[in-house]
Amino acid sequence: MATAKDLNTIHGWTAVARDPKVVLSGKDYLHAPSSVLVQDIAFPGDDPLVARVQAYAQSRLAPQTYNHSMRVYHFASAILQQQFPAQAATLSRATLAITALLHDIGTTHDHLRATRLSFEFYGGYLALDLVGKQLQPPGPHAQAQAEAVAEAIVRHQDLGTTGTITFLGQLIQLATIYDNMGGNPGLVHADTKVDVNKQFPRNGWSACFSKTIREENALKPWAHTTALGEEAFPEGVLHNKLMAEFD
Amino acid sequence: MATAKDLNTIHGWTAVARDPKVVLSGKDYLHAPSSVLVQDIAFPGDDPLVARVQAYAQSRLAPQTYNHSMRVYHFASAILQQQFPAQAATLSRATLAITALLHDIGTTHDHLRATRLSFEFYGGYLALDLVGKQLQPPGPHAQAQAEAVAEAIVRHQDLGTTGTITFLGQLIQLATIYDNMGGNPGLVHADTKVDVNKQFPRNGWSACFSKTIREENALKPWAHTTALGEEAFPEGVLHNKLMAEFD
Repeated sequence: MATAKDLNTIHGWTAVARDPKVVLSGKDYLHAPSSVLVQDIAFPGDDPLVARVQAYAQSRLAPQTYNHSMRVYHFASAILQQQFPAQAATLSRATLAITALLHDIGTTHDHLRATRLSFEFYGGYLALDLVGKQLQPPGPHAQAQAEAVAEAIVRHQDLGTTGTITFLGQLIQLATIYDNMGGNPGLVHADTKVDVNKQFPRNGWSACFSKTIREENALKPWAHTTALGEEAFPEGVLHNKLMAEFD
Repeated sequence: MATAKDLNTIHGWTAVARDPKVVLSGKDYLHAPSSVLVQDIAFPGDDPLVARVQAYAQSRLAPQTYNHSMRVYHFASAILQQQFPAQAATLSRATLAITALLHDIGTTHDHLRATRLSFEFYGGYLALDLVGKQLQPPGPHAQAQAEAVAEAIVRHQDLGTTGTITFLGQLIQLATIYDNMGGNPGLVHADTKVDVNKQFPRNGWSACFSKTIREENALKPWAHTTALGEEAFPEGVLHNKLMAEFD
Protein backbone atom coordinates (compact mmCIF):
# COMPACT_ATOMS: atom_id res chain seq x y z
CA MET A 1 0.00 0.00 0.00
CA ALA A 2 1.33 3.41 -0.92
CA THR A 3 2.73 5.30 2.04
CA ALA A 4 2.14 9.00 2.48
CA LYS A 5 5.71 9.49 1.29
CA ASP A 6 5.04 7.45 -1.88
CA LEU A 7 1.90 9.49 -2.57
CA ASN A 8 3.97 12.66 -2.21
CA THR A 9 6.57 11.48 -4.70
CA ILE A 10 4.07 10.12 -7.20
CA HIS A 11 1.96 13.28 -7.29
CA GLY A 12 4.75 15.84 -7.25
CA TRP A 13 4.30 16.92 -3.64
CA THR A 14 7.91 17.93 -3.18
CA ALA A 15 8.99 21.49 -2.55
CA VAL A 16 11.08 23.34 -5.10
CA ALA A 17 11.90 27.02 -5.39
CA ARG A 18 9.14 29.07 -6.99
CA ASP A 19 11.79 31.14 -8.82
CA PRO A 20 12.55 29.40 -12.12
CA LYS A 21 16.03 30.98 -12.11
CA VAL A 22 16.79 29.13 -8.90
CA VAL A 23 15.27 25.88 -10.20
CA LEU A 24 17.45 26.15 -13.31
CA SER A 25 20.51 27.31 -11.35
CA GLY A 26 20.54 30.55 -13.32
CA LYS A 27 21.11 28.72 -16.59
CA ASP A 28 19.11 28.23 -19.78
CA TYR A 29 18.79 24.55 -18.94
CA LEU A 30 20.17 21.98 -16.49
CA HIS A 31 20.76 19.44 -19.25
CA ALA A 32 20.95 20.39 -22.93
CA PRO A 33 17.54 19.40 -24.33
CA SER A 34 17.54 16.59 -26.84
CA SER A 35 15.26 16.04 -29.78
CA VAL A 36 12.09 14.13 -28.85
CA LEU A 37 8.93 13.95 -30.90
CA VAL A 38 5.32 13.64 -29.75
CA GLN A 39 5.20 9.99 -30.82
CA ASP A 40 8.01 9.30 -28.33
CA ILE A 41 6.37 11.13 -25.43
CA ALA A 42 4.06 8.76 -23.58
CA PHE A 43 0.57 10.16 -23.05
CA PRO A 44 -1.22 8.03 -20.44
CA GLY A 45 -4.44 7.82 -22.43
CA ASP A 46 -5.00 4.19 -21.42
CA ASP A 47 -5.37 5.24 -17.78
CA PRO A 48 -9.18 5.19 -17.27
CA LEU A 49 -9.14 8.33 -15.13
CA VAL A 50 -7.03 10.21 -17.66
CA ALA A 51 -9.39 9.08 -20.41
CA ARG A 52 -12.38 10.43 -18.45
CA VAL A 53 -10.64 13.74 -17.78
CA GLN A 54 -9.55 14.01 -21.40
CA ALA A 55 -13.13 13.44 -22.57
CA TYR A 56 -14.40 16.04 -20.10
CA ALA A 57 -11.75 18.56 -21.15
CA GLN A 58 -12.29 17.99 -24.85
CA SER A 59 -16.04 18.47 -24.44
CA ARG A 60 -15.72 21.71 -22.46
CA LEU A 61 -12.58 23.53 -23.60
CA ALA A 62 -12.49 25.71 -26.70
CA PRO A 63 -10.57 23.72 -29.35
CA GLN A 64 -7.57 26.04 -29.14
CA THR A 65 -7.50 25.75 -25.35
CA TYR A 66 -7.63 21.96 -25.60
CA ASN A 67 -4.67 21.97 -28.00
CA HIS A 68 -2.80 24.35 -25.67
CA SER A 69 -3.46 21.93 -22.80
CA MET A 70 -2.07 19.02 -24.83
CA ARG A 71 0.98 21.09 -25.79
CA VAL A 72 1.47 21.93 -22.11
CA TYR A 73 1.41 18.22 -21.28
CA HIS A 74 3.97 17.36 -23.93
CA PHE A 75 6.29 20.27 -23.18
CA ALA A 76 6.03 19.52 -19.45
CA SER A 77 6.78 15.87 -20.10
CA ALA A 78 9.85 16.67 -22.19
CA ILE A 79 11.09 19.18 -19.61
CA LEU A 80 10.47 16.64 -16.83
CA GLN A 81 12.28 13.85 -18.65
CA GLN A 82 15.30 15.87 -19.73
CA GLN A 83 15.77 18.53 -17.03
CA PHE A 84 14.65 16.55 -13.96
CA PRO A 85 15.52 12.89 -14.59
CA ALA A 86 15.28 11.90 -10.92
CA GLN A 87 11.69 13.13 -10.63
CA ALA A 88 10.95 11.79 -14.11
CA ALA A 89 11.42 8.29 -12.74
CA THR A 90 8.66 8.72 -10.16
CA LEU A 91 6.20 11.47 -11.11
CA SER A 92 2.84 10.10 -12.23
CA ARG A 93 2.26 10.95 -15.89
CA ALA A 94 -1.46 10.53 -15.23
CA THR A 95 -1.35 13.30 -12.61
CA LEU A 96 0.67 15.48 -14.98
CA ALA A 97 -1.77 14.84 -17.83
CA ILE A 98 -4.81 15.59 -15.67
CA THR A 99 -3.25 18.83 -14.44
CA ALA A 100 -2.39 19.93 -17.98
CA LEU A 101 -5.86 19.06 -19.26
CA LEU A 102 -7.64 20.95 -16.47
CA HIS A 103 -5.33 23.89 -15.71
CA ASP A 104 -7.38 26.31 -17.85
CA ILE A 105 -10.79 24.71 -17.25
CA GLY A 106 -11.86 27.94 -15.55
CA THR A 107 -11.51 29.83 -18.83
CA THR A 108 -14.33 28.27 -20.85
CA HIS A 109 -17.04 30.71 -21.94
CA ASP A 110 -19.50 29.17 -19.48
CA HIS A 111 -17.11 28.79 -16.56
CA LEU A 112 -15.93 32.40 -16.87
CA ARG A 113 -19.55 33.44 -16.34
CA ALA A 114 -20.54 30.82 -13.77
CA THR A 115 -18.54 32.42 -10.97
CA ARG A 116 -17.01 35.60 -9.60
CA LEU A 117 -13.97 33.65 -8.39
CA SER A 118 -10.65 34.17 -10.14
CA PHE A 119 -10.52 31.48 -12.84
CA GLU A 120 -7.53 29.68 -11.34
CA PHE A 121 -9.36 29.21 -8.02
CA TYR A 122 -12.62 28.11 -9.66
CA GLY A 123 -10.67 25.74 -11.89
CA GLY A 124 -8.80 24.34 -8.92
CA TYR A 125 -12.01 23.65 -7.03
CA LEU A 126 -13.66 22.10 -10.12
CA ALA A 127 -10.63 19.82 -10.51
CA LEU A 128 -10.61 18.95 -6.79
CA ASP A 129 -14.18 17.73 -7.02
CA LEU A 130 -13.87 16.05 -10.41
CA VAL A 131 -10.67 14.15 -9.65
CA GLY A 132 -11.23 13.59 -5.94
CA LYS A 133 -14.89 12.64 -5.85
CA GLN A 134 -16.67 12.37 -9.18
CA LEU A 135 -14.37 10.48 -11.52
CA GLN A 136 -12.82 7.97 -9.12
CA PRO A 137 -13.67 6.45 -5.73
CA PRO A 138 -12.65 8.75 -2.85
CA GLY A 139 -9.69 7.67 -0.73
CA PRO A 140 -6.13 8.61 0.26
CA HIS A 141 -4.77 8.14 -3.28
CA ALA A 142 -7.58 10.08 -4.92
CA GLN A 143 -7.19 12.87 -2.39
CA ALA A 144 -3.41 13.12 -2.79
CA GLN A 145 -3.84 13.22 -6.57
CA ALA A 146 -6.83 15.59 -6.70
CA GLU A 147 -5.18 18.01 -4.30
CA ALA A 148 -1.92 17.94 -6.26
CA VAL A 149 -3.85 18.87 -9.40
CA ALA A 150 -5.84 21.57 -7.57
CA GLU A 151 -2.80 23.13 -5.88
CA ALA A 152 -0.99 23.34 -9.23
CA ILE A 153 -4.02 24.86 -10.97
CA VAL A 154 -4.65 27.44 -8.22
CA ARG A 155 -1.01 28.54 -8.41
CA HIS A 156 -0.30 28.17 -12.12
CA GLN A 157 -0.28 31.96 -12.61
CA ASP A 158 1.30 32.64 -9.21
CA LEU A 159 4.66 33.59 -10.69
CA GLY A 160 7.26 35.01 -8.35
CA THR A 161 10.74 34.76 -6.92
CA THR A 162 10.02 34.00 -3.27
CA GLY A 163 9.24 30.80 -1.41
CA THR A 164 8.48 27.38 -2.74
CA ILE A 165 5.91 25.54 -4.80
CA THR A 166 5.14 21.89 -5.49
CA PHE A 167 7.35 20.25 -8.13
CA LEU A 168 4.19 19.53 -10.15
CA GLY A 169 3.25 23.20 -9.87
CA GLN A 170 6.68 24.35 -11.05
CA LEU A 171 6.53 22.00 -14.04
CA ILE A 172 3.11 23.38 -15.03
CA GLN A 173 4.33 26.96 -14.63
CA LEU A 174 7.38 26.26 -16.82
CA ALA A 175 5.32 24.58 -19.54
CA THR A 176 2.53 27.18 -19.60
CA ILE A 177 4.96 30.13 -19.63
CA TYR A 178 6.83 28.41 -22.45
CA ASP A 179 3.74 27.88 -24.56
CA ASN A 180 2.01 31.19 -23.69
CA MET A 181 4.93 33.60 -23.62
CA GLY A 182 7.96 31.77 -25.01
CA GLY A 183 9.60 31.87 -21.59
CA ASN A 184 12.75 29.81 -20.81
CA PRO A 185 13.12 28.78 -24.46
CA GLY A 186 16.32 26.86 -23.74
CA LEU A 187 14.40 24.10 -22.01
CA VAL A 188 12.94 22.48 -25.12
CA HIS A 189 14.70 21.23 -28.25
CA ALA A 190 13.69 22.95 -31.49
CA ASP A 191 12.54 19.61 -32.98
CA THR A 192 10.23 19.08 -30.01
CA LYS A 193 8.87 22.60 -30.28
CA VAL A 194 8.11 22.09 -33.98
CA ASP A 195 6.55 18.64 -33.59
CA VAL A 196 4.35 19.48 -30.61
CA ASN A 197 3.01 22.47 -32.50
CA LYS A 198 2.47 20.29 -35.56
CA GLN A 199 0.49 17.64 -33.64
CA PHE A 200 -1.48 20.17 -31.56
CA PRO A 201 -1.73 23.32 -33.72
CA ARG A 202 -2.01 26.74 -32.11
CA ASN A 203 -4.64 28.00 -34.60
CA GLY A 204 -4.12 31.56 -33.41
CA TRP A 205 -3.60 30.71 -29.72
CA SER A 206 -1.68 33.92 -29.00
CA ALA A 207 -4.59 36.16 -29.98
CA CYS A 208 -7.10 33.71 -28.53
CA PHE A 209 -5.52 33.50 -25.09
CA SER A 210 -4.72 37.20 -25.00
CA LYS A 211 -8.44 37.81 -25.58
CA THR A 212 -9.38 35.35 -22.83
CA ILE A 213 -7.13 37.14 -20.33
CA ARG A 214 -8.81 40.42 -21.18
CA GLU A 215 -12.21 38.73 -20.89
CA GLU A 216 -11.39 37.44 -17.38
CA ASN A 217 -10.18 40.86 -16.29
CA ALA A 218 -13.20 42.58 -17.83
CA LEU A 219 -15.73 40.25 -16.20
CA LYS A 220 -13.80 40.18 -12.93
CA PRO A 221 -11.74 43.39 -12.53
CA TRP A 222 -10.51 42.04 -9.16
CA ALA A 223 -9.13 38.86 -10.72
CA HIS A 224 -5.82 37.35 -9.66
CA THR A 225 -4.75 37.40 -13.33
CA THR A 226 -4.29 41.17 -12.98
CA ALA A 227 -1.28 40.42 -10.75
CA LEU A 228 0.67 39.56 -13.92
CA GLY A 229 0.02 43.02 -15.34
CA GLU A 230 -3.31 44.23 -16.70
CA GLU A 231 -1.69 45.25 -20.00
CA ALA A 232 1.70 43.56 -19.85
CA PHE A 233 0.36 40.02 -19.60
CA PRO A 234 -2.15 39.99 -22.46
CA GLU A 235 0.31 41.95 -24.61
CA GLY A 236 3.15 39.56 -23.80
CA VAL A 237 0.95 36.63 -24.75
CA LEU A 238 -0.21 38.32 -27.95
CA HIS A 239 3.35 39.07 -29.07
CA ASN A 240 4.84 35.64 -28.25
CA LYS A 241 7.82 35.74 -30.62
CA LEU A 242 8.98 32.17 -29.99
CA MET A 243 5.71 30.68 -31.15
CA ALA A 244 4.76 33.30 -33.76
CA GLU A 245 5.77 31.05 -36.66
CA PHE A 246 3.33 28.37 -35.48
CA ASP A 247 0.46 30.66 -34.64
CA MET B 1 -34.63 41.33 -6.02
CA ALA B 2 -30.94 41.99 -5.76
CA THR B 3 -29.31 42.57 -9.12
CA ALA B 4 -25.89 41.19 -9.93
CA LYS B 5 -24.58 44.71 -9.40
CA ASP B 6 -26.20 44.89 -5.93
CA LEU B 7 -24.68 41.53 -5.01
CA ASN B 8 -21.28 42.83 -6.09
CA THR B 9 -21.55 45.91 -3.91
CA ILE B 10 -22.97 44.08 -0.90
CA HIS B 11 -20.27 41.40 -0.88
CA GLY B 12 -17.27 43.58 -1.69
CA TRP B 13 -16.87 42.47 -5.29
CA THR B 14 -15.30 45.71 -6.43
CA ALA B 15 -11.74 45.94 -7.66
CA VAL B 16 -9.17 47.92 -5.72
CA ALA B 17 -5.41 48.00 -6.04
CA ARG B 18 -3.67 45.11 -4.31
CA ASP B 19 -0.88 47.49 -3.19
CA PRO B 20 -1.93 49.02 0.15
CA LYS B 21 0.24 52.08 -0.60
CA VAL B 22 -1.91 52.76 -3.64
CA VAL B 23 -5.14 52.13 -1.72
CA LEU B 24 -4.00 54.58 0.96
CA SER B 25 -2.62 57.07 -1.59
CA GLY B 26 0.84 56.69 -0.09
CA LYS B 27 -0.33 58.05 3.27
CA ASP B 28 -0.66 56.60 6.77
CA TYR B 29 -4.43 56.93 6.47
CA LEU B 30 -7.06 58.48 4.18
CA HIS B 31 -8.99 59.93 7.12
CA ALA B 32 -7.46 60.39 10.57
CA PRO B 33 -8.83 57.47 12.58
CA SER B 34 -11.17 58.36 15.41
CA SER B 35 -11.65 56.62 18.71
CA VAL B 36 -14.24 53.83 18.53
CA LEU B 37 -14.67 51.05 21.07
CA VAL B 38 -15.82 47.48 20.54
CA GLN B 39 -19.22 48.24 22.07
CA ASP B 40 -19.76 50.79 19.27
CA ILE B 41 -18.73 48.44 16.46
CA ALA B 42 -21.74 46.45 15.31
CA PHE B 43 -21.10 42.72 15.16
CA PRO B 44 -23.90 41.07 13.16
CA GLY B 45 -24.39 38.25 15.64
CA ASP B 46 -28.17 38.31 15.18
CA ASP B 47 -27.79 37.27 11.54
CA PRO B 48 -28.62 33.52 11.66
CA LEU B 49 -25.89 32.64 9.15
CA VAL B 50 -23.28 34.63 11.06
CA ALA B 51 -24.39 32.93 14.27
CA ARG B 52 -23.94 29.50 12.65
CA VAL B 53 -20.51 30.42 11.29
CA GLN B 54 -19.48 31.88 14.63
CA ALA B 55 -20.51 28.67 16.42
CA TYR B 56 -18.60 26.60 13.87
CA ALA B 57 -15.49 28.79 14.16
CA GLN B 58 -15.60 28.87 17.92
CA SER B 59 -15.87 25.08 18.08
CA ARG B 60 -12.98 24.47 15.67
CA LEU B 61 -10.46 27.29 16.07
CA ALA B 62 -7.84 27.32 18.80
CA PRO B 63 -9.02 29.94 21.35
CA GLN B 64 -6.24 32.35 20.37
CA THR B 65 -7.10 31.99 16.70
CA TYR B 66 -10.76 32.67 17.45
CA ASN B 67 -9.83 35.85 19.33
CA HIS B 68 -7.54 36.87 16.47
CA SER B 69 -10.45 36.36 14.06
CA MET B 70 -12.71 38.56 16.19
CA ARG B 71 -10.00 41.23 16.40
CA VAL B 72 -9.65 41.06 12.62
CA TYR B 73 -13.41 41.66 12.28
CA HIS B 74 -13.35 44.66 14.59
CA PHE B 75 -10.22 46.22 13.12
CA ALA B 76 -11.58 45.63 9.60
CA SER B 77 -14.89 47.18 10.58
CA ALA B 78 -13.22 50.28 12.05
CA ILE B 79 -10.96 50.64 9.00
CA LEU B 80 -13.97 50.20 6.71
CA GLN B 81 -16.07 52.76 8.57
CA GLN B 82 -13.39 55.41 8.88
CA GLN B 83 -11.14 54.98 5.83
CA PHE B 84 -13.73 53.90 3.24
CA PRO B 85 -17.02 55.59 4.20
CA ALA B 86 -18.59 55.07 0.76
CA GLN B 87 -18.11 51.31 0.89
CA ALA B 88 -19.01 51.30 4.59
CA ALA B 89 -22.53 52.30 3.60
CA THR B 90 -23.01 49.20 1.46
CA LEU B 91 -20.65 46.37 2.43
CA SER B 92 -22.42 43.54 4.22
CA ARG B 93 -21.14 43.26 7.79
CA ALA B 94 -22.33 39.66 7.77
CA THR B 95 -20.03 38.86 4.85
CA LEU B 96 -17.17 40.68 6.57
CA ALA B 97 -17.80 38.82 9.82
CA ILE B 98 -17.97 35.44 8.09
CA THR B 99 -14.72 36.12 6.24
CA ALA B 100 -12.95 37.20 9.42
CA LEU B 101 -14.23 34.17 11.34
CA LEU B 102 -13.16 31.70 8.64
CA HIS B 103 -10.01 33.24 7.16
CA ASP B 104 -7.69 31.03 9.26
CA ILE B 105 -9.97 27.98 9.40
CA GLY B 106 -7.30 26.06 7.50
CA THR B 107 -4.88 26.43 10.42
CA THR B 108 -6.60 24.27 13.03
CA HIS B 109 -4.57 21.29 14.21
CA ASP B 110 -6.88 18.90 12.38
CA HIS B 111 -7.27 20.91 9.20
CA LEU B 112 -3.49 21.37 8.85
CA ARG B 113 -3.24 17.58 8.76
CA ALA B 114 -6.36 16.83 6.73
CA THR B 115 -4.88 18.06 3.48
CA ARG B 116 -1.72 18.74 1.48
CA LEU B 117 -3.25 21.92 0.08
CA SER B 118 -1.86 25.26 1.22
CA PHE B 119 -4.02 26.29 4.19
CA GLU B 120 -5.47 29.36 2.47
CA PHE B 121 -6.74 27.25 -0.45
CA TYR B 122 -8.17 24.54 1.83
CA GLY B 123 -9.77 27.20 4.02
CA GLY B 124 -11.28 28.90 0.99
CA TYR B 125 -12.65 25.60 -0.22
CA LEU B 126 -14.14 24.79 3.21
CA ALA B 127 -15.72 28.24 3.40
CA LEU B 128 -17.15 28.00 -0.11
CA ASP B 129 -18.92 24.78 0.82
CA LEU B 130 -20.00 25.87 4.30
CA VAL B 131 -21.38 29.26 3.30
CA GLY B 132 -22.59 28.35 -0.18
CA LYS B 133 -24.21 24.98 0.44
CA GLN B 134 -24.29 23.75 4.03
CA LEU B 135 -25.34 26.67 6.18
CA GLN B 136 -27.84 28.38 3.89
CA PRO B 137 -30.00 27.42 0.89
CA PRO B 138 -28.03 27.58 -2.37
CA GLY B 139 -28.87 30.40 -4.77
CA PRO B 140 -27.46 33.54 -6.40
CA HIS B 141 -27.11 35.40 -3.10
CA ALA B 142 -25.49 32.48 -1.32
CA GLN B 143 -23.10 31.97 -4.21
CA ALA B 144 -22.11 35.64 -4.43
CA GLN B 145 -21.50 35.68 -0.67
CA ALA B 146 -19.73 32.33 -0.38
CA GLU B 147 -17.44 33.12 -3.30
CA ALA B 148 -16.61 36.55 -1.88
CA VAL B 149 -15.58 34.88 1.38
CA ALA B 150 -13.60 32.17 -0.43
CA GLU B 151 -11.79 34.58 -2.77
CA ALA B 152 -10.74 36.73 0.20
CA ILE B 153 -9.55 33.70 2.17
CA VAL B 154 -7.59 32.22 -0.75
CA ARG B 155 -5.81 35.57 -1.27
CA HIS B 156 -5.49 36.79 2.30
CA GLN B 157 -1.72 36.10 2.30
CA ASP B 158 -1.29 37.06 -1.36
CA LEU B 159 0.47 40.31 -0.56
CA GLY B 160 1.96 42.27 -3.44
CA THR B 161 2.13 45.50 -5.34
CA THR B 162 0.70 44.49 -8.71
CA GLY B 163 -2.83 44.15 -10.01
CA THR B 164 -6.09 44.27 -8.16
CA ILE B 165 -8.03 42.42 -5.49
CA THR B 166 -11.60 42.50 -4.24
CA PHE B 167 -12.38 45.31 -1.79
CA LEU B 168 -13.34 42.67 0.78
CA GLY B 169 -10.00 40.97 0.18
CA GLN B 170 -8.07 44.19 0.65
CA LEU B 171 -9.91 44.91 3.91
CA ILE B 172 -9.05 41.46 5.23
CA GLN B 173 -5.41 41.86 4.19
CA LEU B 174 -5.18 45.24 5.95
CA ALA B 175 -6.78 43.93 9.15
CA THR B 176 -4.76 40.71 9.31
CA ILE B 177 -1.45 42.46 8.60
CA TYR B 178 -2.32 45.00 11.29
CA ASP B 179 -3.09 42.35 13.89
CA ASN B 180 -0.34 39.89 12.90
CA MET B 181 2.52 42.23 12.06
CA GLY B 182 1.54 45.72 13.20
CA GLY B 183 1.41 46.86 9.57
CA ASN B 184 -0.15 50.23 8.57
CA PRO B 185 -0.51 51.28 12.22
CA GLY B 186 -1.89 54.69 11.27
CA LEU B 187 -5.20 53.17 10.21
CA VAL B 188 -6.55 52.47 13.68
CA HIS B 189 -6.97 54.83 16.65
CA ALA B 190 -4.98 53.91 19.75
CA ASP B 191 -8.20 53.67 21.81
CA THR B 192 -9.60 51.16 19.34
CA LYS B 193 -6.38 49.15 19.36
CA VAL B 194 -6.46 49.00 23.17
CA ASP B 195 -10.14 48.14 23.48
CA VAL B 196 -10.20 45.45 20.80
CA ASN B 197 -7.25 43.77 22.48
CA LYS B 198 -9.00 44.08 25.83
CA GLN B 199 -12.22 42.47 24.60
CA PHE B 200 -10.45 39.77 22.55
CA PRO B 201 -7.10 39.15 24.30
CA ARG B 202 -4.08 37.98 22.33
CA ASN B 203 -2.94 35.49 25.03
CA GLY B 204 0.42 35.14 23.32
CA TRP B 205 -0.89 35.33 19.75
CA SER B 206 2.47 36.44 18.32
CA ALA B 207 4.25 33.28 19.44
CA CYS B 208 1.20 31.16 18.73
CA PHE B 209 0.74 32.28 15.14
CA SER B 210 4.47 32.30 14.46
CA LYS B 211 4.47 28.65 15.54
CA THR B 212 1.48 27.87 13.29
CA ILE B 213 3.24 29.38 10.27
CA ARG B 214 6.25 27.19 10.94
CA GLU B 215 3.95 24.21 11.39
CA GLU B 216 2.29 24.82 8.00
CA ASN B 217 5.68 25.15 6.30
CA ALA B 218 7.03 22.06 8.06
CA LEU B 219 4.04 19.87 7.16
CA LYS B 220 3.84 21.35 3.66
CA PRO B 221 7.25 22.62 2.54
CA TRP B 222 5.65 23.67 -0.78
CA ALA B 223 3.05 25.86 0.94
CA HIS B 224 2.03 29.25 -0.41
CA THR B 225 2.85 30.74 3.01
CA THR B 226 6.54 30.38 2.11
CA ALA B 227 6.03 33.16 -0.44
CA LEU B 228 6.03 35.63 2.48
CA GLY B 229 9.49 34.49 3.53
CA GLU B 230 10.27 31.18 5.21
CA GLU B 231 12.07 32.97 8.07
CA ALA B 232 11.03 36.59 7.60
CA PHE B 233 7.31 35.97 8.01
CA PRO B 234 7.25 33.92 11.21
CA GLU B 235 9.94 36.17 12.68
CA GLY B 236 8.02 39.31 11.75
CA VAL B 237 4.91 37.90 13.39
CA LEU B 238 6.85 36.83 16.50
CA HIS B 239 8.39 40.28 16.94
CA ASN B 240 5.22 42.33 16.36
CA LYS B 241 6.23 45.49 18.21
CA LEU B 242 2.89 47.27 17.85
CA MET B 243 1.03 44.55 19.68
CA ALA B 244 3.79 43.40 22.05
CA GLU B 245 2.24 45.23 25.04
CA PHE B 246 -0.99 43.25 24.60
CA ASP B 247 0.57 39.91 23.91
